[in-house]
Amino acid sequence: MTVAVGIIGAGVMGADHANTLASSVAGVRLLAICDADLRRAETTATATGAEIATKDPMAIINDPAIDAVLIASPDQTHHDLTLACIAARKPVLCEKPLAPTAKQCLDVIAAEVSLGRRLVQVGYMRRFDPAYVEIKAKLKSGQLGSPIILHCIHRNLSAPPWFDSKMSITNSAVHEMDISRWLLEEELATVQVFRPTTSNIDATVGPVFLVFETSSGRIVDVENNNNGGYGYDVRGELVCEKGTISLRSPINSEFNLHLVQGVSYPSDWRQRFATAYRLQLQEWVRSIGTGANVGASAWDGYAASAVAEAGLEALSQGGSRKITLEPRPPLYS
Amino acid sequence: MTVAVGIIGAGVMGADHANTLASSVAGVRLLAICDADLRRAETTATATGAEIATKDPMAIINDPAIDAVLIASPDQTHHDLTLACIAARKPVLCEKPLAPTAKQCLDVIAAEVSLGRRLVQVGYMRRFDPAYVEIKAKLKSGQLGSPIILHCIHRNLSAPPWFDSKMSITNSAVHEMDISRWLLEEELATVQVFRPTTSNIDATVGPVFLVFETSSGRIVDVENNNNGGYGYDVRGELVCEKGTISLRSPINSEFNLHLVQGVSYPSDWRQRFATAYRLQLQEWVRSIGTGANVGASAWDGYAASAVAEAGLEALSQGGSRKITLEPRPPLYS
Amino acid sequence: MTVAVGIIGAGVMGADHANTLASSVAGVRLLAICDADLRRAETTATATGAEIATKDPMAIINDPAIDAVLIASPDQTHHDLTLACIAARKPVLCEKPLAPTAKQCLDVIAAEVSLGRRLVQVGYMRRFDPAYVEIKAKLKSGQLGSPIILHCIHRNLSAPPWFDSKMSITNSAVHEMDISRWLLEEELATVQVFRPTTSNIDATVGPVFLVFETSSGRIVDVENNNNGGYGYDVRGELVCEKGTISLRSPINSEFNLHLVQGVSYPSDWRQRFATAYRLQLQEWVRSIGTGANVGASAWDGYAASAVAEAGLEALSQGGSRKITLEPRPPLYS
Amino acid sequence: MTVAVGIIGAGVMGADHANTLASSVAGVRLLAICDADLRRAETTATATGAEIATKDPMAIINDPAIDAVLIASPDQTHHDLTLACIAARKPVLCEKPLAPTAKQCLDVIAAEVSLGRRLVQVGYMRRFDPAYVEIKAKLKSGQLGSPIILHCIHRNLSAPPWFDSKMSITNSAVHEMDISRWLLEEELATVQVFRPTTSNIDATVGPVFLVFETSSGRIVDVENNNNGGYGYDVRGELVCEKGTISLRSPINSEFNLHLVQGVSYPSDWRQRFATAYRLQLQEWVRSIGTGANVGASAWDGYAASAVAEAGLEALSQGGSRKITLEPRPPLYS
Repeated sequence: MTVAVGIIGAGVMGADHANTLASSVAGVRLLAICDADLRRAETTATATGAEIATKDPMAIINDPAIDAVLIASPDQTHHDLTLACIAARKPVLCEKPLAPTAKQCLDVIAAEVSLGRRLVQVGYMRRFDPAYVEIKAKLKSGQLGSPIILHCIHRNLSAPPWFDSKMSITNSAVHEMDISRWLLEEELATVQVFRPTTSNIDATVGPVFLVFETSSGRIVDVENNNNGGYGYDVRGELVCEKGTISLRSPINSEFNLHLVQGVSYPSDWRQRFATAYRLQLQEWVRSIGTGANVGASAWDGYAASAVAEAGLEALSQGGSRKITLEPRPPLYS
Repeated sequence: MTVAVGIIGAGVMGADHANTLASSVAGVRLLAICDADLRRAETTATATGAEIATKDPMAIINDPAIDAVLIASPDQTHHDLTLACIAARKPVLCEKPLAPTAKQCLDVIAAEVSLGRRLVQVGYMRRFDPAYVEIKAKLKSGQLGSPIILHCIHRNLSAPPWFDSKMSITNSAVHEMDISRWLLEEELATVQVFRPTTSNIDATVGPVFLVFETSSGRIVDVENNNNGGYGYDVRGELVCEKGTISLRSPINSEFNLHLVQGVSYPSDWRQRFATAYRLQLQEWVRSIGTGANVGASAWDGYAASAVAEAGLEALSQGGSRKITLEPRPPLYS
Repeated sequence: MTVAVGIIGAGVMGADHANTLASSVAGVRLLAICDADLRRAETTATATGAEIATKDPMAIINDPAIDAVLIASPDQTHHDLTLACIAARKPVLCEKPLAPTAKQCLDVIAAEVSLGRRLVQVGYMRRFDPAYVEIKAKLKSGQLGSPIILHCIHRNLSAPPWFDSKMSITNSAVHEMDISRWLLEEELATVQVFRPTTSNIDATVGPVFLVFETSSGRIVDVENNNNGGYGYDVRGELVCEKGTISLRSPINSEFNLHLVQGVSYPSDWRQRFATAYRLQLQEWVRSIGTGANVGASAWDGYAASAVAEAGLEALSQGGSRKITLEPRPPLYS
Repeated sequence: MTVAVGIIGAGVMGADHANTLASSVAGVRLLAICDADLRRAETTATATGAEIATKDPMAIINDPAIDAVLIASPDQTHHDLTLACIAARKPVLCEKPLAPTAKQCLDVIAAEVSLGRRLVQVGYMRRFDPAYVEIKAKLKSGQLGSPIILHCIHRNLSAPPWFDSKMSITNSAVHEMDISRWLLEEELATVQVFRPTTSNIDATVGPVFLVFETSSGRIVDVENNNNGGYGYDVRGELVCEKGTISLRSPINSEFNLHLVQGVSYPSDWRQRFATAYRLQLQEWVRSIGTGANVGASAWDGYAASAVAEAGLEALSQGGSRKITLEPRPPLYS
């Protein structure tokens, strides 16, 4: 079976997805590209061989020739477009976040619950990263014993001028919120935010350091550092009773030059998570044929957003904040 | 454009290729599987969704619905099947070796030269491995200066009982012969084989150590060790005037357990070169649409076989052997 | 000049110091060993060639032939013996802690201030560890910019049965309290303790996770894990504006065996910090000749103990605790 | 017991030894420094507290107050001075080489055999390097099975202008000749030298690549590269039946900066082998008290020189050269 896909949004993310689907994913036919800027839609369509370029997202969602929709348009549009996909009974892969607020995420959940089945996958692509997958497999093997602490580091080379500490939590650390829930298979229950503020470090550009307690009492800590200064670097170490296991970034070569033995960092996330993005798309396409649920659900999208909102409160008000989630519908168990 | 492919040979290698094509390669439709054992062909066809299963390779090569052929049948059949593909004007990806002898490889070259264009790619997949690609890119960047020595190590966990030192050269080290030609962009001119033989090490199962001089005077050395004992491990370091660059194997995680900080080795080549195999197939499929030449040519297949034959002579007779190649036809320059 | 030294305490630590002094330190003559158990004193004296073995610490402190004293007796004796050394005008290297309570450390400070010069070094040996020294030098070089966060990990293979979370703070994490003050050259101002407590992890044996804010607003976090389960492992990463620098443990060899590429962990601190202990003794001996101040002062001993006491309060009462130090006498600036 | 030592030669090497003895070695008193340049002797004596500075080596060798002699004068003086020490019945640590030719080394052996005991240690300090020691211990443990191949790499940042390929063999690779004999506990039986010579690489400054067969049939290969271009780097991997073990250089810290994760190389051998030099001196001093034989003997000094001479022949004449040693006197078994 070949799945016909339409993409809504042809910005950096959408164009990347379009390119990956067209060049590296089996079993798919990229049929249509939509963007508010028609020229941008046309450019991506031409580059990837998609037949249709349009400004109208509903033309994609309602096109009977299109089997599934990928949403990579601006964040504030995700909620309405995802609901429209559900209304049209179309499987949809929505880039994170699922909606601007946790509350709005619940609308999507309500729509799926009402329909009685899941159509939505949220683009938390790290769940497909071979390093996280290997860590989870090692944990599941039981060799390491029960997990106790998860240390996470998420550093960017440098933040764009409009970036601030709030976005470090909602746009960047939200990946760690999702992946720690997925790894530990439980919810995050409290959050506290520490923010270094010396005379040399401006609080708006410096890192945030988050400490979570999980519902069962484990600890997750996250250094989110959007001005890390040296490269794109995502790390994680899962501390268990008998030992630990750490992520290794994909490194292909090592050099000796100028008194240094070194390996290179990428300057952004694209190289680091290229495989995760490819596998996320491949698994999504396959799941459309098989009907299996893969990746982050609407519930996971809601939970990550709710945790991020509690993180924002902890950032502005200090101290430890409790994270409260609505009851989880059986559809997501 | 979707390329329809038929695979000849459904053993381990052929079934692996079929699975990769069906599950992970864009722009391709796996249409037919051929194997001398029809049941094996049917099993692979069913697993991958291929419509046709057959015992007759010519039925695949001559099927007008099939755009391109992948040969993964036993080594001694490669020569005739490749010639048949050329006769049928079908692009063909032939597993290494191209033919049982260097001399027979020349038949394939003659057929392509006579046709006036190249249809044959030989499956030296390391040319698509991200680590080798990165090393070549770093070399080309000029930062390291001119290359001087290439150190290679190729170790398997353990050899099957029927394996011997000759096969270490023709089946295993032949990969280093190809990749060193590709990296250094010149021919290997002499070869000498050292073989450790202590009372503890049986010459038939122990490693061979090959030292080559290239046509311009560089050195390539290769430890090929099919009973390495600890895991599948391929390494390489390119020593240049100003520094060196080394391969890093794909590692996803690192553990701390039982007084050891470690990473795991795979037990065979499949995990180590999974990406190389996938990219080789993806690039081959793309090249069929574009008509570009990618990967190892019939000439490269001939050269690797000629080097391996000189290696065998050096193994049995000792001393340094000259490697002589026929003149290279302009088609391959 | 050869310095004549007497050691008080011939337990594991004292015997180790005696052995290092006798076998690997220049410019010193180990003259006397004291232990409450005379037989133990004699055993160590014989093993190291020390002439005198005694039960009486004052016999050592007051012996005019002894130039300097090393105190490695039980913790509760440190305070009185150090004061006795000051009274006798003898340079003294006192194992940490300087005294059972921060308040008692102030007695030692008062004695030195009254004398008008410093005689006391406290055995925070990490200040002599080549890895910490290299990190501080790199920081001082300015290449990394200003420091922002210090991540510390301190894991033991397994804790003795009488060990608990309080001791994790006072006996183990106290090393990180000292070294972070030394690296950042400022005081720790607040401390908060997180303690994972799942059904699988008993709070008394599980790790503690401490988060400090420094007086200028930097963050120091410490995982102290006395039942780490896999080996003795001390790590640290200093995050600065432009990059980071991390400790590397002394590793001499790497093995490939049984599908693993690995390096070995020591089972306790002796191998990891052997060089730090040796250099601490060598620098102390040299300082006795030159009169220079090296290593941790009585003030540093006081500060570390005060921080640890605040950590204990945070452990038992939860929330963030302020750390208050007495004004620092000019003698220690 | 305190051993009184005199040093002959106050160049870079001699001054380094003097400094290490005075600052970091237990049980020794550095009493005298000799150099043909009296001023240089005086400078080193002043820096290290040695009482005597002289131009006359025999004044040192014959001084009854001096227990042992360290020879670090120019290579061509080693032979006569070592013989003089034997005549004076003084333990002597002679820097490598023991004599300008293998034949002259036999004179030293004859003198010791005639005396009936060993007084000479040759300064092949790698035998005291913790990395080599750990590799040998792992080999002896039996976990890895029998050794098969030893790969060695020895790279300098850049060679002085007067350095050539011959010196790469006699002054630099001679260390690998000694250490491979020590590790494998057998003699090297044949040697062949490969020398890359492309238009870009001048044979006089480029590396030499040596391949040895041992008397039992093992292989040792050595890349000796005095113009490595990037730093001082010594590596080794011992390949055994069940696995391998490799040297790790002493690294204290790792940085992240400017898109690189790296560790620093030293620019010369002093940092890399500081511990080996210190332990060599410490063990030598201790052995003078105990009468034990430690380190490389006169026989080892002879064997290394004989291997290097065979290497020179192989360099100039090509092909494989047999290495022939005189019968080993029982004194050295």
